[in-house]
Amino acid sequence: MEKKQKIILDCDPGHDDAIALLLAARHPGLELLAITTVAGNQTLEKTTRNALSVCTLAHIRDVPVARGMAQPLVREARYASDIHGESGLDGPALPQPEREAVPEHAVDLIIDLVRSTDDVVLVATGPLTNVASAITREPAILSRLKGLYLMGGAIGLGNVSPAAEFNIYFDPEAAAIVFNSGCPITMIPLEVTHQALATPAILERLRALGRPVPSFVCQLLEFFGNTYRQVFGFTAPPVHDPCAVAALIDPTLVSQHSMYVAIETRGEYTLGRTVCDVYGVLGRRANACVGYGLDAPRFWELLIETLASYGEESASDG
Amino acid sequence: MEKKQKIILDCDPGHDDAIALLLAARHPGLELLAITTVAGNQTLEKTTRNALSVCTLAHIRDVPVARGMAQPLVREARYASDIHGESGLDGPALPQPEREAVPEHAVDLIIDLVRSTDDVVLVATGPLTNVASAITREPAILSRLKGLYLMGGAIGLGNVSPAAEFNIYFDPEAAAIVFNSGCPITMIPLEVTHQALATPAILERLRALGRPVPSFVCQLLEFFGNTYRQVFGFTAPPVHDPCAVAALIDPTLVSQHSMYVAIETRGEYTLGRTVCDVYGVLGRRANACVGYGLDAPRFWELLIETLASYGEESASDG
Amino acid sequence: MEKKQKIILDCDPGHDDAIALLLAARHPGLELLAITTVAGNQTLEKTTRNALSVCTLAHIRDVPVARGMAQPLVREARYASDIHGESGLDGPALPQPEREAVPEHAVDLIIDLVRSTDDVVLVATGPLTNVASAITREPAILSRLKGLYLMGGAIGLGNVSPAAEFNIYFDPEAAAIVFNSGCPITMIPLEVTHQALATPAILERLRALGRPVPSFVCQLLEFFGNTYRQVFGFTAPPVHDPCAVAALIDPTLVSQHSMYVAIETRGEYTLGRTVCDVYGVLGRRANACVGYGLDAPRFWELLIETLASYGEESASDG
Amino acid sequence: MEKKQKIILDCDPGHDDAIALLLAARHPGLELLAITTVAGNQTLEKTTRNALSVCTLAHIRDVPVARGMAQPLVREARYASDIHGESGLDGPALPQPEREAVPEHAVDLIIDLVRSTDDVVLVATGPLTNVASAITREPAILSRLKGLYLMGGAIGLGNVSPAAEFNIYFDPEAAAIVFNSGCPITMIPLEVTHQALATPAILERLRALGRPVPSFVCQLLEFFGNTYRQVFGFTAPPVHDPCAVAALIDPTLVSQHSMYVAIETRGEYTLGRTVCDVYGVLGRRANACVGYGLDAPRFWELLIETLASYGEESASDG
Repeated sequence: MEKKQKIILDCDPGHDDAIALLLAARHPGLELLAITTVAGNQTLEKTTRNALSVCTLAHIRDVPVARGMAQPLVREARYASDIHGESGLDGPALPQPEREAVPEHAVDLIIDLVRSTDDVVLVATGPLTNVASAITREPAILSRLKGLYLMGGAIGLGNVSPAAEFNIYFDPEAAAIVFNSGCPITMIPLEVTHQALATPAILERLRALGRPVPSFVCQLLEFFGNTYRQVFGFTAPPVHDPCAVAALIDPTLVSQHSMYVAIETRGEYTLGRTVCDVYGVLGRRANACVGYGLDAPRFWELLIETLASYGEESASDG
Repeated sequence: MEKKQKIILDCDPGHDDAIALLLAARHPGLELLAITTVAGNQTLEKTTRNALSVCTLAHIRDVPVARGMAQPLVREARYASDIHGESGLDGPALPQPEREAVPEHAVDLIIDLVRSTDDVVLVATGPLTNVASAITREPAILSRLKGLYLMGGAIGLGNVSPAAEFNIYFDPEAAAIVFNSGCPITMIPLEVTHQALATPAILERLRALGRPVPSFVCQLLEFFGNTYRQVFGFTAPPVHDPCAVAALIDPTLVSQHSMYVAIETRGEYTLGRTVCDVYGVLGRRANACVGYGLDAPRFWELLIETLASYGEESASDG
Repeated sequence: MEKKQKIILDCDPGHDDAIALLLAARHPGLELLAITTVAGNQTLEKTTRNALSVCTLAHIRDVPVARGMAQPLVREARYASDIHGESGLDGPALPQPEREAVPEHAVDLIIDLVRSTDDVVLVATGPLTNVASAITREPAILSRLKGLYLMGGAIGLGNVSPAAEFNIYFDPEAAAIVFNSGCPITMIPLEVTHQALATPAILERLRALGRPVPSFVCQLLEFFGNTYRQVFGFTAPPVHDPCAVAALIDPTLVSQHSMYVAIETRGEYTLGRTVCDVYGVLGRRANACVGYGLDAPRFWELLIETLASYGEESASDG
Repeated sequence: MEKKQKIILDCDPGHDDAIALLLAARHPGLELLAITTVAGNQTLEKTTRNALSVCTLAHIRDVPVARGMAQPLVREARYASDIHGESGLDGPALPQPEREAVPEHAVDLIIDLVRSTDDVVLVATGPLTNVASAITREPAILSRLKGLYLMGGAIGLGNVSPAAEFNIYFDPEAAAIVFNSGCPITMIPLEVTHQALATPAILERLRALGRPVPSFVCQLLEFFGNTYRQVFGFTAPPVHDPCAVAALIDPTLVSQHSMYVAIETRGEYTLGRTVCDVYGVLGRRANACVGYGLDAPRFWELLIETLASYGEESASDG
């Protein structure tokens, strides 16, 4: 990648969002234009504070953080405290944020940046409320966006319900708007992210770097690992959100198939399901590239290498 | 199994139903009390005729065949002509049935047999319309039934739609009644049956037996293989329904987990989905044992051995 | 009406069902072939007992009473104890039934009678579970039935919910089957029955007859009047079910319009609504004659005159 | 009313919206802060142009017109061309707009005005997309708003479907957001507006005023009368939207009951129904005052008197 890919990261940190943010802010192939926050893993207030804390910890100073939608479009919010704790980022001690969110609303910032900048890619690692709101409010951005990479959905089993993955379930109407919008979507579902398991060996490699940012990530993953063990019986926690950033950085990391994906907004037991028409039986035009396989070793190389580079900066910073 | 397990086979032949019927009628561990037919793969008239033809071909003379429900409980019928052809059993030449269905309605026959016989197991390889009708009409049979083995549903991807498997999709309200009934259910989903692939090597073994019934099965699987290749891109066709019979004959063939399964009857894109709460996030009591893995080599041994035994009878018959 | 109209009364007594039964059994224009019972206002056991008690009280001896479906087709039963009390017929002392239900299932009795008798009209004053079950089990009866008169639904406001009337709400799937069946339907909705108010003047006329059956009806209406006052704020109770019988006896009593009526089976707040396409905006073919206006004075003449005639019989009986 | 009531009119003109606008802009009891437009009767482009044309015709110069949401929140737009024609305001010749919409988005203008002004009342005569978007984006305005008067919904029969009124049907999710928001709502349903019929006598009175604005209204009503006759069989057209403005100006014009109103967003045949719990059977807290009766003669006095006053201005203007 010769020219840096300009991106906006729309997120709800959240443990894995925080790691995605660290990857997006630091990888040499990306230029992070803005961080926008949304309610999801926790309230908007908490996800915004978490984004600012992570920026503070990692000395990310020049990327604006904008506060977005505080509620799903239509439904009640149901936060993921069981997974991410009361703060949304339980586990490590978080630094007091040394910076503030910009006054502009996240939805306006997304619209303004997409209007004024060519070839922006939106990376969404939370519910799609901000993205859908931007599209509904200013449909003209659709022809300007280069693409949307999102962590969300599942081909098979969900997590927050047997049918649905959390990000889509939290705001299914927003997801329906986005998937029906015609925007070029790359969807990174649970099938991919459940291959990105932070095993003890991975944690050990992070710890061995001996630097603040990888250590912080290590503590995040320890907390996350505990909740994943208790709730889902996983032996090692999946790091969902960085997979979406990684799939943009290096498309060879995630194998993909193009297909039609519908969002279920009416089912009694299937609310928020990403109905992936793998066999093409619905006869509709594809609206998403859906990730299947992950080259996990190379994914971890990419992530650990990037996290390790924070040490260099920190040193030079000091 | 010292004592034969008494079963009723409720089916909609259908290529794989026909094979299930042949297995159920002949395996020494089972005593087939009745064959009841239901609309599904084709109209009730055709599935009944197919059941009678298969009985004729295989000299099954003493098992009553009863005609059941001609329509799903609530919805319009949508037959599977794309998979099973116009007759429901396209491919081999079918003998003219030499026998007729009994005058009794399948639902009444099921009720009567369950009332009068201890420890009956119902094996359902079609839509659950007959089973649900019997339960609704005479709830007292629930405490008499030993169990229900059914081929249907999916943990992950469906086949007739991205979310649903054909048998459940055809009559989702019937499935909902059955899964909510409290009846001990063993559900054999697509995850199991897609491991029972009739490869060329399997076909060759059937053909090599040089007898009418295995040859007939071979021809069924050749037709079925073609439609599965065209519609789903499978290289070899899955023989769904015999898996349910086999799981009853030898429980060690199919690994199972107990869980809560809900039937989606309202979704826009997910109608008829078997929502399998694998992680237990819904907090409801398990209502089904759901099959996962299949010991495919041993399954094929069981099936081929049983089909081969038809030759012996045919010989002695003649 | 020179020749008596043969009818089957399918009911769930229930106060107004009991009055409808008394009207149907005694009016000289009708020949009541059978009384079939269904769960609705109360459990099947109770509605059947109530039907038998009313027959006992009114010396109705030759009309078979058959027990039908004990549950809605798909959903949980939700009885109307708040309106009809614990017995389903609270208020007057009920005689111990002196007769029993026939052993035949109501659904079979309906099918048999419709098959063997020309020009039968079904009058349904409860949920449509029996009617739908008969249609689903034996679709051939549709071409034999002269028509179906049913008390149920609403053009505007419902009663059990803001959107739905009790009979339809109790088993919406059954109603959907019936309305989609092609059977000639005359639907008597709340708009008609709310014009049949048993005012104190009506009660006085019944009381003044000085005979057991009208007195019994009077006591029924006093209890019913109390619950209608408490639950709905009505000053006098509507006698719903007799309106359907009366509309059959004398079509000039109820003004009607032909239209398409859909049954809502999926709504969150509108389950069981009879969606009446009064303006024809849906462009579908009419499937029901829907009652609008009631000639209330003549309706009461008909009802009171018929109830009064029970005295004559009772006298001659004694 | 000593002090003028400050209002924002959110509308989708539309024949009756245009009349509501003329009433709102001129009545001495109101101070019209802004006109915001939304897609509904026609596209946003057309409804905005229509609002500007009406302002031009009526010399409304100081009230900002702001363009709002171009689509329902979640669903596809389905315009009312059959009722309002291709322009959304077919019938009279429309003047070329002499003014333009302000650059600010309607949703932002609503938020800003409500934040900066005490006791604002929102009057919505179109779909609730702008109102819902303002609430979702800035929930804090809820405690600032004095109230919302809206034309929409029905207690009984709908118009665009048997169950739903057009404004709610066009964007049911927006309506659900608004009705669940806690905002004090006065809902003026079809039951009220169908009492505001523009009979020939009314048209004659408008015509007799001999002035441009009433003549324009007269021509609007002639076109509207034709479509209402053809589509709904009305002999005179109902002027829906002015009823909402009139109910605010003079609360004695519309009798009201407080009740819980739910919005159906999932039904198959009942999408967009305003489920009005008239009998209180759902046991939920009231969230709306729902209009019932209209004092039609006094309504017409109010409307005609206000429209007549445009002549005075026009004279003085010239």
